[in-house]
Amino acid sequence: MGEQMKAISYIDNLLEWQQAFSFRIPIKIRFSETDMFGHVNNVSPFIYFEEARIEFMKMIGLFGDLDNPTGVPVVADLQCDYHKQMYFGESIDMYVKANHVGNTSFDLHYMAINEEKEICLTGRGRIVHIHPNDGKPLPMDKDMIHKLMATNK
Amino acid sequence: MGEQMKAISYIDNLLEWQQAFSFRIPIKIRFSETDMFGHVNNVSPFIYFEEARIEFMKMIGLFGDLDNPTGVPVVADLQCDYHKQMYFGESIDMYVKANHVGNTSFDLHYMAINEEKEICLTGRGRIVHIHPNDGKPLPMDKDMIHKLMATNK
Amino acid sequence: MGEQMKAISYIDNLLEWQQAFSFRIPIKIRFSETDMFGHVNNVSPFIYFEEARIEFMKMIGLFGDLDNPTGVPVVADLQCDYHKQMYFGESIDMYVKANHVGNTSFDLHYMAINEEKEICLTGRGRIVHIHPNDGKPLPMDKDMIHKLMATNK
Amino acid sequence: MGEQMKAISYIDNLLEWQQAFSFRIPIKIRFSETDMFGHVNNVSPFIYFEEARIEFMKMIGLFGDLDNPTGVPVVADLQCDYHKQMYFGESIDMYVKANHVGNTSFDLHYMAINEEKEICLTGRGRIVHIHPNDGKPLPMDKDMIHKLMATNK
Repeated sequence: MGEQMKAISYIDNLLEWQQAFSFRIPIKIRFSETDMFGHVNNVSPFIYFEEARIEFMKMIGLFGDLDNPTGVPVVADLQCDYHKQMYFGESIDMYVKANHVGNTSFDLHYMAINEEKEICLTGRGRIVHIHPNDGKPLPMDKDMIHKLMATNK
Repeated sequence: MGEQMKAISYIDNLLEWQQAFSFRIPIKIRFSETDMFGHVNNVSPFIYFEEARIEFMKMIGLFGDLDNPTGVPVVADLQCDYHKQMYFGESIDMYVKANHVGNTSFDLHYMAINEEKEICLTGRGRIVHIHPNDGKPLPMDKDMIHKLMATNK
Repeated sequence: MGEQMKAISYIDNLLEWQQAFSFRIPIKIRFSETDMFGHVNNVSPFIYFEEARIEFMKMIGLFGDLDNPTGVPVVADLQCDYHKQMYFGESIDMYVKANHVGNTSFDLHYMAINEEKEICLTGRGRIVHIHPNDGKPLPMDKDMIHKLMATNK
Repeated sequence: MGEQMKAISYIDNLLEWQQAFSFRIPIKIRFSETDMFGHVNNVSPFIYFEEARIEFMKMIGLFGDLDNPTGVPVVADLQCDYHKQMYFGESIDMYVKANHVGNTSFDLHYMAINEEKEICLTGRGRIVHIHPNDGKPLPMDKDMIHKLMATNK
């Protein structure tokens, strides 16, 4: 990877981008997440993004927070770049950090690293914080915004 | 199939059992439902059973019936016998019929037929009709019981 | 939609973009593709993209073409914008067209339309045509390139 | 559970049956494995059975054993009894043991235990050891048979 890696719109400097992650969860690939081509199906990375996103949201207090039931995070878009094939039997680390944190929305960046420390996947997606009743964007409180920004060193 | 087919506890006479089905839905196998062994993953037949079960329940009036919100059907158990490998690109017909229809529960029987008219899957599972509040078995009305019995000729 | 729809990097003029599609396949949403939030899970659109992509590739001759075994299409990246929630019981039309067709790669654009003719999903992703042995980009023949360009009116 | 648990054909004495397991793997439920009813989808337990089955097979030497490429284990049937709803956020232990071990086939029994030590799922399924070329039943070597029997105390 590195120099050979194609240009990706949401990554300016790969090394800096990579080093700014700290939050991660381990993912064990399931057999049912492979396909007849012999490797992990192209759909499955979005399962891994979701697992990591939810744990990240819990840490921030944006998932199932009973003290703050007014706002709900909604996935506005998602994208994934496939860098290396993944196989059944592998374990990966899914990293997440926040980017472009605004008052009512923010980006999440994703990176999957295999056991050989290679980047298998990178990705991003916008999260919008909405009011559950009218669906309109709802400002997040300052504490959450600070927590989000702290996930991107 | 036929004589070569192993004995299956829920089938007495295969030909009679097979001919008693009438309800069916078509299923197109999804690429993501295959696995690295090259064929349909062992989990996927239960997706097909579920699709067929829900359409069957809608026909009977047991799924999302606004006129009868008191009872809810719950899957108590499921089983599947794998007779022939299935592959991406195949379309199958999923058949369903009711069996052992009681006052508060019944069995569903399942059969998948491929384009060569071969039996790929057979299966069964108990459905219990419960009260949504206390979870206790709730008698179905006579009309539903008659409709259920009519699905098994 | 229309004016209210957020700006999307791969769409210049929504109406023109939408009208340039012609290839489509119907998708019936599966119950197992919903999640505990009550609607279609955020991962599932990528299943629908894959189903449409493979049928599109078959039409072009890029999927399982025994006469042209030298080249293999590989998904380099995928992205999806979520415009409207989708629910179990809905049927959608998945549209696909090619964009930015080069000698060894091209983009696919995706659009999902529900029964009320609303855009539920838009998306895109790069396909690279590679040699199966060395994994290097392989030029497509002129006929395929013409077929691809003809899918975007 | 216990006395209230319905009779299950493959369990004679629940307490003895339960205590005879020793092999287990942890499973973290994925968000995409829930459905619009709010809990784990009825299909997902078969994903968990598969994950546990493969790890069990690896331990026995029946999955991807390069020293013994002649035989392949095939799932002949599967069944699952649903005892307690499972929810996103839960972790379960999936237990597996062998039963009715013959020369060319054996049963696997499955049990899922939640964090409150409750039985959520029980199940079983026949595995047939076949020759990969002609698909005919192939005797397992004695060492494997002993290993299998040792998993059921």
